[in-house]
Amino acid sequence: MTDATRPLVRDLSEDELLARIFPLLPGGTATLLGPGDDAAVVAAPDARFVVTTDVLVEDRHFRRRWSDGRDVGARAATANLADVAAMGARPTSLVVSLVVPGDLPVGWVTGLARGLAEVCAPVGAGVVGGDLSGGDAVVVAVTAHGDLEGRAPVTRAGARPGDVLAYAGHRGLSAAGLALLDAGAAGAAAPDLDDVPDGELAACVAGYLRPTSPLAAGPEAARRGATAMLDVSDGLLRDAGRLARASGVRVDVATAELAADVDRLLPAAHAVGRGRDAALGWVLTGGEDHGLLATFPPGVELPEGFRRIGQVLAGPAGVTVDGEDPGTHTGWDHFAG
Amino acid sequence: MTDATRPLVRDLSEDELLARIFPLLPGGTATLLGPGDDAAVVAAPDARFVVTTDVLVEDRHFRRRWSDGRDVGARAATANLADVAAMGARPTSLVVSLVVPGDLPVGWVTGLARGLAEVCAPVGAGVVGGDLSGGDAVVVAVTAHGDLEGRAPVTRAGARPGDVLAYAGHRGLSAAGLALLDAGAAGAAAPDLDDVPDGELAACVAGYLRPTSPLAAGPEAARRGATAMLDVSDGLLRDAGRLARASGVRVDVATAELAADVDRLLPAAHAVGRGRDAALGWVLTGGEDHGLLATFPPGVELPEGFRRIGQVLAGPAGVTVDGEDPGTHTGWDHFAG
Repeated sequence: MTDATRPLVRDLSEDELLARIFPLLPGGTATLLGPGDDAAVVAAPDARFVVTTDVLVEDRHFRRRWSDGRDVGARAATANLADVAAMGARPTSLVVSLVVPGDLPVGWVTGLARGLAEVCAPVGAGVVGGDLSGGDAVVVAVTAHGDLEGRAPVTRAGARPGDVLAYAGHRGLSAAGLALLDAGAAGAAAPDLDDVPDGELAACVAGYLRPTSPLAAGPEAARRGATAMLDVSDGLLRDAGRLARASGVRVDVATAELAADVDRLLPAAHAVGRGRDAALGWVLTGGEDHGLLATFPPGVELPEGFRRIGQVLAGPAGVTVDGEDPGTHTGWDHFAG
Repeated sequence: MTDATRPLVRDLSEDELLARIFPLLPGGTATLLGPGDDAAVVAAPDARFVVTTDVLVEDRHFRRRWSDGRDVGARAATANLADVAAMGARPTSLVVSLVVPGDLPVGWVTGLARGLAEVCAPVGAGVVGGDLSGGDAVVVAVTAHGDLEGRAPVTRAGARPGDVLAYAGHRGLSAAGLALLDAGAAGAAAPDLDDVPDGELAACVAGYLRPTSPLAAGPEAARRGATAMLDVSDGLLRDAGRLARASGVRVDVATAELAADVDRLLPAAHAVGRGRDAALGWVLTGGEDHGLLATFPPGVELPEGFRRIGQVLAGPAGVTVDGEDPGTHTGWDHFAG
């Protein structure tokens, strides 16, 4: 961890803390008026904007002994920008409401700003505003905006029987990484990504701490005529079920198309004393990978980053795996367990 | 309190909880695609949008024994829409990230949705999206958007010597209400606004639990040529100081212009065993009233709702009261105390 442990948030006034954060925030190509006033002003060239919000809560979505501020900032930005991309939009801007305990190191907060910038700057998105409050646990609530560039939004509701089911991004990496951290198999209570050796185990841990989303694939899918799309944050089967119900179709996931994803997670499964079933479970139901699930008309050449993982069929709305009921392995609930 | 105590949040699945919330949310005149997909789509007729975010944290910004869900929802909406109005924009939409403990009554959450709707619907703003997470304390992070209707945004930086300093909204009501609740002088641990008798004490308590902002006065001020404007959420002197520093001017507040505000708070001051000094303190430094502070060129007829409270002068940037240094009574700090 690169965060210094001093000063603490409570050692600085709010204005002093903001003065350390502001210079770290990316400007953004659509920003007309940035942070510092009552509100920011952002360009919306086609007279519409896409907006989504996603919140991360300490000890629910991340643990401070595993994730430093940069990790959490990067993850918060990725989760939100993936939702923007899943509408077929290009991310333009985000705002951040941040709740921080007084005993949090200031370096954790500036790390968070850096993590946000690392994800936003490459796609031209600006961090244009925020709010700061004290509280007992860290909460990072991000709202992100995007530009549809004149296209219709790609909702969850447009999939038709005969469409190809396709996916862009990692599958199960985040769940495998969490399992490794849980088991202590990564070898450290607080792994520094820069110190973890190369290899599949490190990739899993990184996939949990700093998931990456194929943000450019969203607008490209829209250009190629994607009929439906969503960000897979709650697990492939659960989110595929949402698309299926919204569209009134059956979505069938073909495990044969996911064999390489399962193979990739075998070392992690073995490291936690489990086998191929666990790896397949991570691929089908693991959350927080932030890949994009989309459907395309038959015959369309899939855009870069997407690969076929099944098909859309007529029939009772829902998801099947190799033509069969997936049972109850369809993800998790925020308030369960 | 009208909230039922059962069921609790943990008794429902996330989807079940959302199904109870969605029907309560206002649609909004600018909403092109509402909640339920990865992101919403909102109209931005002049190819720009205004955006701001503001977070309320349990036991920092509200106490559950005093404020029910409706109060907190209304207050969260007001705090955010006031920031939009303070740019001279018309509110169009907001999104809400909500953190709730599992033992919170579902009625508290549906009350929050109703409170949001009570503030948003009259101005045509929609609640277009949200996110829900478990957590140990209630956190309500709202992001609000507005339409500048072709006008330039009114920032904090445009005040010029000679301008009139004007204010729209209540002064000190929220601080007086909090003092009454703190002192138990309101006569109930959990006052129901419908049960509190009419009168100034009840108005103060209501001003704390459900502050109201003159939202229409913001765009109207912009139309009349306001040179600078901001939402007064941290206290009149502190926020006036921000406007003064951003504009490079001296802002002088005239207490003679605020005499009626002080008079109005005298019953509350007396009820907590204090006098006129306390009432003046609430007027000058009390936070969370969400009125609008604006400057206008000399000779401009002030728009409806605004009244003169001082003037803009040349000189070292900062705020004075009746020409003198206001001392250290310039508000509060989020992490202090």
